[in-house]
Amino acid sequence: MLKVPDHQVAGHKAGNGKLGPLVDDSGHFYKPLQGDERGSNEVSFYASFSSNTRIPGHIRRFFPNFYGTQLVEASDGSGLQPHLVLQDLTLGRVNPSIMDIKIGSRTWPPQATKDYISKCLKKDRESSSIPLGFRFSGLQIYESRELGFWKPGKRSIKCLSADEVKLILRKFVSSHASEEMDSKPDCTFASVVYGGSAGILAQLLELKAWFEDQTIYHFYSCSVLMTYEKELISNGKSPNAEIKLVDFAHVVEGKGVIDHNFLGGLCSLIKFISEILTTPDECTTESSSEDFRKNRISEDGAP
Amino acid sequence: MLKVPDHQVAGHKAGNGKLGPLVDDSGHFYKPLQGDERGSNEVSFYASFSSNTRIPGHIRRFFPNFYGTQLVEASDGSGLQPHLVLQDLTLGRVNPSIMDIKIGSRTWPPQATKDYISKCLKKDRESSSIPLGFRFSGLQIYESRELGFWKPGKRSIKCLSADEVKLILRKFVSSHASEEMDSKPDCTFASVVYGGSAGILAQLLELKAWFEDQTIYHFYSCSVLMTYEKELISNGKSPNAEIKLVDFAHVVEGKGVIDHNFLGGLCSLIKFISEILTTPDECTTESSSEDFRKNRISEDGAP
Repeated sequence: MLKVPDHQVAGHKAGNGKLGPLVDDSGHFYKPLQGDERGSNEVSFYASFSSNTRIPGHIRRFFPNFYGTQLVEASDGSGLQPHLVLQDLTLGRVNPSIMDIKIGSRTWPPQATKDYISKCLKKDRESSSIPLGFRFSGLQIYESRELGFWKPGKRSIKCLSADEVKLILRKFVSSHASEEMDSKPDCTFASVVYGGSAGILAQLLELKAWFEDQTIYHFYSCSVLMTYEKELISNGKSPNAEIKLVDFAHVVEGKGVIDHNFLGGLCSLIKFISEILTTPDECTTESSSEDFRKNRISEDGAP
Repeated sequence: MLKVPDHQVAGHKAGNGKLGPLVDDSGHFYKPLQGDERGSNEVSFYASFSSNTRIPGHIRRFFPNFYGTQLVEASDGSGLQPHLVLQDLTLGRVNPSIMDIKIGSRTWPPQATKDYISKCLKKDRESSSIPLGFRFSGLQIYESRELGFWKPGKRSIKCLSADEVKLILRKFVSSHASEEMDSKPDCTFASVVYGGSAGILAQLLELKAWFEDQTIYHFYSCSVLMTYEKELISNGKSPNAEIKLVDFAHVVEGKGVIDHNFLGGLCSLIKFISEILTTPDECTTESSSEDFRKNRISEDGAP
């Protein structure tokens, strides 16, 4: 009855004796509760969020539905284990192209311990999180019936430069993706996937407006999942482009302050996607500060 | 001919054999070049910015005018030393109330060394920078002819909670400021200083719109200076409320990416000030996540 999801692009995966999420055929996604506080924190978040009357409906739709927790047979054979029961975001989707993008240049909350900060800071510095304000956690881009999906390795997509990130965001909406990194994507589907009143950019801007105002939650180490179906476009239909927020193990209370870390990263992502819509043919970064001498920051100067 | 500025609220101060900025009586502010790369970096920034034709006029007005560099007699008696020659931002101002607010939760650029990061991160964590996205570097609030200025100590204003920051931002636009921290400010001048089409909020929003788009510079450890004159209001005039950006020793190239760190902090500050305008009578933080359990973040859990 429960099976390994077809289209998981990030996170621990079930199978071969490993613990990971499972799905059933009625649209539920079973995510194993992490044993430490992360599991209980994610349950707390979903319980709080799903009952919070101050979340507007047009924002709630960006979050997976929550159906409580349930003991189910774990994928690693360890018997009945508690799982979050969530909406299966890929239910009914055929060959979805998906990007999982972790938002925010800082993935650790203010109250974290020194050790935890060191660990996160190392990853944030080595990846594109610090320079760009977000990083890819996983992605798959559907090519065609013959070629299937282009699904680059996790490690290869975390530490990308701004130009490489631009290239991937362009490949995501191009007719072909799996060629070499230096090939030029055609951005054929940019206007129908990223653009338009129901496109991904419009959804990101709605989310941004909420983040400029909401002071309830701070979303550390949380991802925006972007999904659409290429084949629908070939059939003359809307690509069903959608964003969802996922991974709330590190959400903390906002305490009257906006989530400036998530908001900054979100604005950076929005800028990248906007540029694809305004200059779909251009694939390299404009040399934007030609008259400013290269990084002259003192390496040990006091502020 | 050169003298110590009357209204400096942050940074090194001249006098008693110490090196600090000086002003003349024709509106020039002489800032000693820091000996290490910070000095040359700040000169590079001003040279780049002042000649960059892509900076819109309505944004340029938020930056001090730049008149080059000049050798002048240093305030510490060390003889002729190179100084940046800038616009004296308090020229012609009578008893200005001033806040110097360092923007961004991160005060170090991505390329910084481990040691420099450690030093900055410690300050960012101990201050309000990490939780709020900005911190006070200095402030003075004019009270009256009898009482003069309220000028709290630098250390006392850096490590404030969200509620304490709200209180200071309210005191800034109140008829009295220097009472105890738990007294209630009247926010008498909020609507004319923060509000209105020429007020501080409108200026911050203009700056925000630019930061959502510009990818030329990243402003680490840079401050927004807010100034107005209380006495002008008593005389039935506009308070001459103004924001300026200052301190560019840690500006680096944007390289095609927006300054998500500055933007996030700026949005946080904007939210604080907006709330004063919408609820001028309220002085405590709304308990905004009453149904979300207190911080449950794992102290050492892997992400």
